[in-house]
Amino acid sequence: MSEQRDRVVLAYSGGLDTSVCIKWMQEERGLDVIAVVGDVGQEHDGLEKIHDKALRTGAIECRVVDMREEFAKEYLTPALAANALYENKYPLVSALSRPLIAKHLVEIAHEFGAKYVAHGCTGKGNDQVRFEASIMMLDPSLEIIAPVREWDLKTRPQEMDWAAAHGVEVPTTKKSPYSIDDNLWGRAIECGVLEDPWNEPPADIYTMTTDPEKAPDTPTVVEISFKDGVPCAIDGKEMSYLDIILEMNKISGANGFGRLDMVENRLVGVKSRECYEAPGALAIIKAHKALEDICLERDVLHYKLHVEHEWADQVYNGKWYAPLKAGLDAFLATTQVNVTGTVRLSFYKGACTVTGSKSDYSLYTKELATYDEGDTFDHKSAKGFINIYSLFGKVWAEKHRG
Amino acid sequence: MSEQRDRVVLAYSGGLDTSVCIKWMQEERGLDVIAVVGDVGQEHDGLEKIHDKALRTGAIECRVVDMREEFAKEYLTPALAANALYENKYPLVSALSRPLIAKHLVEIAHEFGAKYVAHGCTGKGNDQVRFEASIMMLDPSLEIIAPVREWDLKTRPQEMDWAAAHGVEVPTTKKSPYSIDDNLWGRAIECGVLEDPWNEPPADIYTMTTDPEKAPDTPTVVEISFKDGVPCAIDGKEMSYLDIILEMNKISGANGFGRLDMVENRLVGVKSRECYEAPGALAIIKAHKALEDICLERDVLHYKLHVEHEWADQVYNGKWYAPLKAGLDAFLATTQVNVTGTVRLSFYKGACTVTGSKSDYSLYTKELATYDEGDTFDHKSAKGFINIYSLFGKVWAEKHRG
Amino acid sequence: MSEQRDRVVLAYSGGLDTSVCIKWMQEERGLDVIAVVGDVGQEHDGLEKIHDKALRTGAIECRVVDMREEFAKEYLTPALAANALYENKYPLVSALSRPLIAKHLVEIAHEFGAKYVAHGCTGKGNDQVRFEASIMMLDPSLEIIAPVREWDLKTRPQEMDWAAAHGVEVPTTKKSPYSIDDNLWGRAIECGVLEDPWNEPPADIYTMTTDPEKAPDTPTVVEISFKDGVPCAIDGKEMSYLDIILEMNKISGANGFGRLDMVENRLVGVKSRECYEAPGALAIIKAHKALEDICLERDVLHYKLHVEHEWADQVYNGKWYAPLKAGLDAFLATTQVNVTGTVRLSFYKGACTVTGSKSDYSLYTKELATYDEGDTFDHKSAKGFINIYSLFGKVWAEKHRG
Amino acid sequence: MSEQRDRVVLAYSGGLDTSVCIKWMQEERGLDVIAVVGDVGQEHDGLEKIHDKALRTGAIECRVVDMREEFAKEYLTPALAANALYENKYPLVSALSRPLIAKHLVEIAHEFGAKYVAHGCTGKGNDQVRFEASIMMLDPSLEIIAPVREWDLKTRPQEMDWAAAHGVEVPTTKKSPYSIDDNLWGRAIECGVLEDPWNEPPADIYTMTTDPEKAPDTPTVVEISFKDGVPCAIDGKEMSYLDIILEMNKISGANGFGRLDMVENRLVGVKSRECYEAPGALAIIKAHKALEDICLERDVLHYKLHVEHEWADQVYNGKWYAPLKAGLDAFLATTQVNVTGTVRLSFYKGACTVTGSKSDYSLYTKELATYDEGDTFDHKSAKGFINIYSLFGKVWAEKHRG
Repeated sequence: MSEQRDRVVLAYSGGLDTSVCIKWMQEERGLDVIAVVGDVGQEHDGLEKIHDKALRTGAIECRVVDMREEFAKEYLTPALAANALYENKYPLVSALSRPLIAKHLVEIAHEFGAKYVAHGCTGKGNDQVRFEASIMMLDPSLEIIAPVREWDLKTRPQEMDWAAAHGVEVPTTKKSPYSIDDNLWGRAIECGVLEDPWNEPPADIYTMTTDPEKAPDTPTVVEISFKDGVPCAIDGKEMSYLDIILEMNKISGANGFGRLDMVENRLVGVKSRECYEAPGALAIIKAHKALEDICLERDVLHYKLHVEHEWADQVYNGKWYAPLKAGLDAFLATTQVNVTGTVRLSFYKGACTVTGSKSDYSLYTKELATYDEGDTFDHKSAKGFINIYSLFGKVWAEKHRG
Repeated sequence: MSEQRDRVVLAYSGGLDTSVCIKWMQEERGLDVIAVVGDVGQEHDGLEKIHDKALRTGAIECRVVDMREEFAKEYLTPALAANALYENKYPLVSALSRPLIAKHLVEIAHEFGAKYVAHGCTGKGNDQVRFEASIMMLDPSLEIIAPVREWDLKTRPQEMDWAAAHGVEVPTTKKSPYSIDDNLWGRAIECGVLEDPWNEPPADIYTMTTDPEKAPDTPTVVEISFKDGVPCAIDGKEMSYLDIILEMNKISGANGFGRLDMVENRLVGVKSRECYEAPGALAIIKAHKALEDICLERDVLHYKLHVEHEWADQVYNGKWYAPLKAGLDAFLATTQVNVTGTVRLSFYKGACTVTGSKSDYSLYTKELATYDEGDTFDHKSAKGFINIYSLFGKVWAEKHRG
Repeated sequence: MSEQRDRVVLAYSGGLDTSVCIKWMQEERGLDVIAVVGDVGQEHDGLEKIHDKALRTGAIECRVVDMREEFAKEYLTPALAANALYENKYPLVSALSRPLIAKHLVEIAHEFGAKYVAHGCTGKGNDQVRFEASIMMLDPSLEIIAPVREWDLKTRPQEMDWAAAHGVEVPTTKKSPYSIDDNLWGRAIECGVLEDPWNEPPADIYTMTTDPEKAPDTPTVVEISFKDGVPCAIDGKEMSYLDIILEMNKISGANGFGRLDMVENRLVGVKSRECYEAPGALAIIKAHKALEDICLERDVLHYKLHVEHEWADQVYNGKWYAPLKAGLDAFLATTQVNVTGTVRLSFYKGACTVTGSKSDYSLYTKELATYDEGDTFDHKSAKGFINIYSLFGKVWAEKHRG
Repeated sequence: MSEQRDRVVLAYSGGLDTSVCIKWMQEERGLDVIAVVGDVGQEHDGLEKIHDKALRTGAIECRVVDMREEFAKEYLTPALAANALYENKYPLVSALSRPLIAKHLVEIAHEFGAKYVAHGCTGKGNDQVRFEASIMMLDPSLEIIAPVREWDLKTRPQEMDWAAAHGVEVPTTKKSPYSIDDNLWGRAIECGVLEDPWNEPPADIYTMTTDPEKAPDTPTVVEISFKDGVPCAIDGKEMSYLDIILEMNKISGANGFGRLDMVENRLVGVKSRECYEAPGALAIIKAHKALEDICLERDVLHYKLHVEHEWADQVYNGKWYAPLKAGLDAFLATTQVNVTGTVRLSFYKGACTVTGSKSDYSLYTKELATYDEGDTFDHKSAKGFINIYSLFGKVWAEKHRG
């Protein structure tokens, strides 16, 4: 009776790289490959097709997992609590899906008794770190294989030759000059002409967002409601968070809002020019912040800005399952209680504007803020306040402005 | 021979409040009033008129001071180094002009041997604190008078009655329902229907920015160049920072960019709904940040985000002349060296987009970032990096994921 | 039948100030006074005596409440999680008891239907703010009276004359030149010769700690064990946290450890010279930190240092019941899970030294740390790690060190 | 005529490791070796001996450089401005000397036209990163060799065999079980029995500090004076900073003060148990902090605590020459102006206590702080201050404590 081969669970996309990974691990490492296809809301030609291709390429099993509901609930909810924007701009699109996929890889590895987990990332991106750090923190006993980093297929033609020689299907259409990653929360585009930051992004790189110049000639107004920090309705109609993201991608994208063009700092020490479109995510975060502005007490709001940066850094850097991230989540969860209310957004030709906000828990009190009649603020307190508030500066000035 | 009366230097705007202040301090406090009118770039009907009105109302002297050049050089330069946005949104329009005006009040007080300095702010805003804290830190021996906070003229009609009874000119046109403050860096609008945050801001509150729906139908593209962090040219034409601000106010404003609608946390403990327009400031800050993205080393960029928040808080809270602010400025100054280069902005119907950036000091290196040929990044280092980078998490998981 | 008088609940200590408060509020404000004496572990001559004095002085009721267990459990537990030291030194002795006492004042006010709550603090200390901010956040409808700040008894002799004239018992012994506040967690001494920071603190100000020169000539060694961050045993003997504090006050105090002499920054804008002794608190915090050093993952430990500062500032500044403090507590709680183990302390003539630590959850792994045989660390990874870790600096240097 | 061999500049200590490095680079890499011995104040048997040994072992040149004055002036001055303590405890002894030595290596490499720089660090410590990151940032064109990380001499006996076989002198005395690094600022001890954190450090590991039990039976009192943050006199006698460090090492060490026993987090992902003695450094930092307590304005002092942590992290992590470190230094420099005055320290059997502080720039003002007569603090302001200060909390409570 033949000995059983060791098993590896591979994050599979259906593209050339991960298809070659299947065959390479089979042949060079002598492993049985279980392919895992995660549906995180990305564009695709059919998950069934990807499934079949994995098996044709030699995988002993292919699991297609619809992770979208879990993605919204368990990953995009804390991301929204953190108004997560890496370097104050990028909504962490790929950084959020990696730990989710890693979690399923680990679970399926346990189910199949696999000793290895594999991914198709290169050696200079962030995603390799996110996959590997997540896997290590979920099950430090699993070993990780990164074929693309290890093999010697240095160029695309070399890789295609290897594929052809080993019976891996070779794409017949010309490769896009861009490298794309997308999911519910947005879409990242890099490479090609974008590699010179002075080049203007070509119009055709965007698929989720309409060109602002071609967007509708009148504003689209939408009201988003939140319950304890989580979106729960659009224009008064209750919907799941997942459905709200999908709907906002449409509305916001149709109005040309949500494009980003930036040079960001990768974890592995290089700057990289990235274009993103995240029409739903950026609109929802904008509305969420506006609601927080009326619901959160000042000290909370100000301190939260720091926690938000740290949260984004942790997640960008692959530390979703790290204990600090858990602590930050605990902090953020306390802030979301009673972030309940509605925000009005107006979309118009690439812009999204908050035009109103309301909440039963609003800490804005007209009676205190108004300069008109009805004012209940104690103006006489101001003198005492300023005297004490400025006392440190006054004493300092007496010594130093001599 | 009669004894000389004590003197007070008053920040004078020409409006009803500060006009009543002149007379009130004369009559109720027995002081000689020196009025100071600072030109910080605000809209006005003529500074000469304001000057004459001060004298007619009883001031013994009125100084009109053009502070615009100094404002740009000494106040808006560090503000740009800090990309200063209070609560990540508000570009500190009024907060930046107050310490400048305070400085001139103190200097003129010294020139006239005045014992007192006065301002026309109420007891519930931020500006009273900014004036008083600035004055205390510049000359702690000066005494401060805040007539509006002290007198018992509780309503506008009462104030107008007092004015009429004491020979102060009473405005004949209906008072605007809004309270406005403006300067080079932008314009703040509050009060009236804005006091309900659910109300959409009326179109007529804005004067620096065109309604996006009425803005040009094609994008306006502008290239801004910077030298050591300070704007130095538009579309290759060298200009002073002051002129660039004025020009960008026009270009950006004409395209409807630069409006803000927010509920912010005032220093004196209340939330307040504020509308702002800052077309030049917000565009210049956006371009400056994009240039920093390519010029600043990662650790600097990330730490600077924290310093920027603290800087904005300090200035919002009236601490321009405080020693912490000086320390933050010293930090920021080191970051601006070699923030030299050009950023391309595209304005279109309310949106402003960065579409390119370049610098001789750019730390973006295509050879390291590219996924194409010419790649000089050492992919093999990645494995070692990840092993050590993730080691803490792995050790932690071994104890905690049992 | 006479109308019922409004009621006030007063924090009562039995001293002259709060005794005069009883009579003053009765006579000047026409209020019925309910005195509350909180036992937070302070030195006293007998709580029964204080109770009787309150009634003799005119209180309609006096409640003596033993708050010690609650103090340890609900207040000193989060304080230990935060290793709370204001300005990195002061263990927040008084700042921790004030919100606890305030909570009981509010509860008793509700029980008696009182409209007012009162305290005996002056206008220049921190405690007035802590009492009032706590009360406002627990029940914003209660009104607060601060007689000492309001009356015109400017000096001690004036106050004693008023007392004598109104039948309040006047102390017959000479007043201590020092102002003292103490509880389980330590003891604060201020005033007198201490008001010149160049003066060495006199030996007789300390009562909880022995003079180091008179302490035992051989070290005392103690092992403190913790379960999830809370002390649970001394030398292997299980005890409540309250009993451990009391015991550590004795052991540590007998060895002369726990004295502090500092100039601190009060909330109300002045620096103040304070002497403290906190023998138990400082020893327990030291042991707790040492245990955290082996149990907490690096990122957690480093970020926690920032949270600790913020926590201490919030509590020092009277914000125990504020929402930010609640969020920080939630963060800190996640860090304390599995901070379980034992630390060995050695006390000797004023010094306390950690001499060992162990935990089943220790993240210290000899196999990784050792330079001897048995080393499992992958040295070859280091080169890859350093290459990528230093890449940002290298790229920066290529542009800037030309 | 023979071609010239490439040259390497090696940080040389005279020990076995770096001696083998000389020979190994000669034979395995075909390089000419220039040895550099830096005198940073470490204990040694004679620098002349080390110099001669380098030449005997095959170095073509050996430079002995007295770096002590430069160390104090350029490295320990900013360290003191930062009160630099990694993880709030460790005064960065080795972390401070590495960049200084690296700077000299680079300068000597330039002088000799060397292409390579080498060090004798292993692959699991911090110092390899500090050397290499420093060198990369000073001259990114230099190549770095780390023989100990590269060769295959896995154990000490293997290394001694290689040495004997290649004519490198082999130590005849038994190797200390500890690994030591020391300089002016202190001494680090690791390995041996210390690798179990529960083991108490043996008495014989310490050489700079007397056992507290054997220290003098009466306190030693010392006054240290500072000028703009830098120590300038002991007991009124002016001395250079270098001499003050040497003197304080003696005084403080003789009284048994300055020992540390901790588990710290190394940069390379492992926790490590370290014992340190830094008698002078810890006493000087303590005095410096006490002086800052009276000289620094509150906001500065509080913000500086954060900057201090970041500074210590940067330097611990090898980023002395990084641009963020330069920015932090610029901030810190502004804080040290007028940190001028005197602090009294009392040393006794392992403890060091501040017993007084004074400064012409002290912001402590008795007239504001006192509770006695002479009080100039405006108590009536307190009510207004508290009302406004607590307003946020009160409004919050009205919505959330319903």
